[in-house]
Amino acid sequence: MKETVKIFKIGGKVIDSEQELSSFLQDFAAVSGHKVLVHGGGKIATQMAERMGVATHMIGGRRVTTQEMLDVVLMVYGGLVNKKIVAKLQALGCDAVGLTGADMNCMVASKRSAHPIDYGFAGDIQYINSNVFSRLLHQNITPILAPLTHDQGGQLLNTNADTIAATTAVALAAAFSVALYFCFEKTGVLTDVQDDTSLVELLSFKTYQELKEKGVIADGMIPKLDNAFHTMQQGVAQVCIMQYSQVKHIEKQQLKATTLCL
Amino acid sequence: MKETVKIFKIGGKVIDSEQELSSFLQDFAAVSGHKVLVHGGGKIATQMAERMGVATHMIGGRRVTTQEMLDVVLMVYGGLVNKKIVAKLQALGCDAVGLTGADMNCMVASKRSAHPIDYGFAGDIQYINSNVFSRLLHQNITPILAPLTHDQGGQLLNTNADTIAATTAVALAAAFSVALYFCFEKTGVLTDVQDDTSLVELLSFKTYQELKEKGVIADGMIPKLDNAFHTMQQGVAQVCIMQYSQVKHIEKQQLKATTLCL
Repeated sequence: MKETVKIFKIGGKVIDSEQELSSFLQDFAAVSGHKVLVHGGGKIATQMAERMGVATHMIGGRRVTTQEMLDVVLMVYGGLVNKKIVAKLQALGCDAVGLTGADMNCMVASKRSAHPIDYGFAGDIQYINSNVFSRLLHQNITPILAPLTHDQGGQLLNTNADTIAATTAVALAAAFSVALYFCFEKTGVLTDVQDDTSLVELLSFKTYQELKEKGVIADGMIPKLDNAFHTMQQGVAQVCIMQYSQVKHIEKQQLKATTLCL
Repeated sequence: MKETVKIFKIGGKVIDSEQELSSFLQDFAAVSGHKVLVHGGGKIATQMAERMGVATHMIGGRRVTTQEMLDVVLMVYGGLVNKKIVAKLQALGCDAVGLTGADMNCMVASKRSAHPIDYGFAGDIQYINSNVFSRLLHQNITPILAPLTHDQGGQLLNTNADTIAATTAVALAAAFSVALYFCFEKTGVLTDVQDDTSLVELLSFKTYQELKEKGVIADGMIPKLDNAFHTMQQGVAQVCIMQYSQVKHIEKQQLKATTLCL
């Protein structure tokens, strides 16, 4: 039987609030067995860019990573956020290592084509070096992944954290039984975004298609769920969409979340 | 017979100039066998702090690491400088990993006492986790150390890169034959700082004491050399003080540098 690895993706508000982050990290540190944490950047990168006088360019709601903005995200995601998480986890007895894709060549990407839209130094993942992760996990080290990859030619690239979590999950599925947890503010997939009790506890691919067609599931949830179902189609054993506060329950069968099924 | 590990310390101008850094990294990548790189921060941290409106406090020529300045050095040393070096080395075929002391708990320090002088979040190294380095080196991974440590209680600390290089060298001396290379702008220890031909090629501890008393060796060279001789007294096999450009010669017996001897 394959060993299990649990992959958690966090982002948004939990990164911006020191208190919420500490609370999450406490629960994460207590999770047993092999685990990986993938973090986004929250609003700190935008705030830091403003403070440094670096303009934020957006196209269709997506950030354009100019050379100057790449330096900002390298500093904020790769330095500030990543290393603070690692130091806090060490204090909680979790032996963590903070990594970008360049470190041990663990996540290789190519710069996204400038046509039709030039997103600058944005990376599309080419492959995940799963041997690096297997080796670390078997040494009881917990990788903490910043949303940064490299192209093996010396160029670092800004890369979506959801995609990193999903692609890493798929890459590790060959050697491990992988559970993937997308953590965010809501309790999971809701049929009414204003109502936390409208949680869809078990979401099949068929129901997802129906809810998408009806417009019940919309906006930012669509790429997230497309991404999530895709990982299951490629061998990831379990995918949950859940609130940060639920991490402490994942081993107790009391989990309030949306669990996907094919 | 023990395997050899070569530890290089770089800082100052080579960090500030992209061209000089690239040239150094090319030579470093070509060095055979186990190796470690320790980098300082150069002037980028000060420039970035200015840009962000973070005041630089100095006491007796030394930077005080306030909470805000710690965030700046985390971003600049731990993110920007460290990850750019790692990505460039990967492009040169050197499998590198960027680390702060928090990563895998590899460098543990305690916050320097606020008495008699409060340097803020400055760390004095308690110990180096040499097992982490041995494991990485035996996997042919090259550690790239940022001048940042942690206290195991969740606090990251700003730490002198010369001290990190020296302490790591001593810690690895039990398991490896360690050669330590302090790289800087000058060709080595000079009896006349204005004259590069006044290089002291072999500097014994006795001669060092004499030159120090005469005032021939002064200022910033004294802590550097005290530090360097101390590592030899604790088992480091070889210590050189040299120019960056000499790194390509270290395996060719043509090295123009100051080699220390007890």
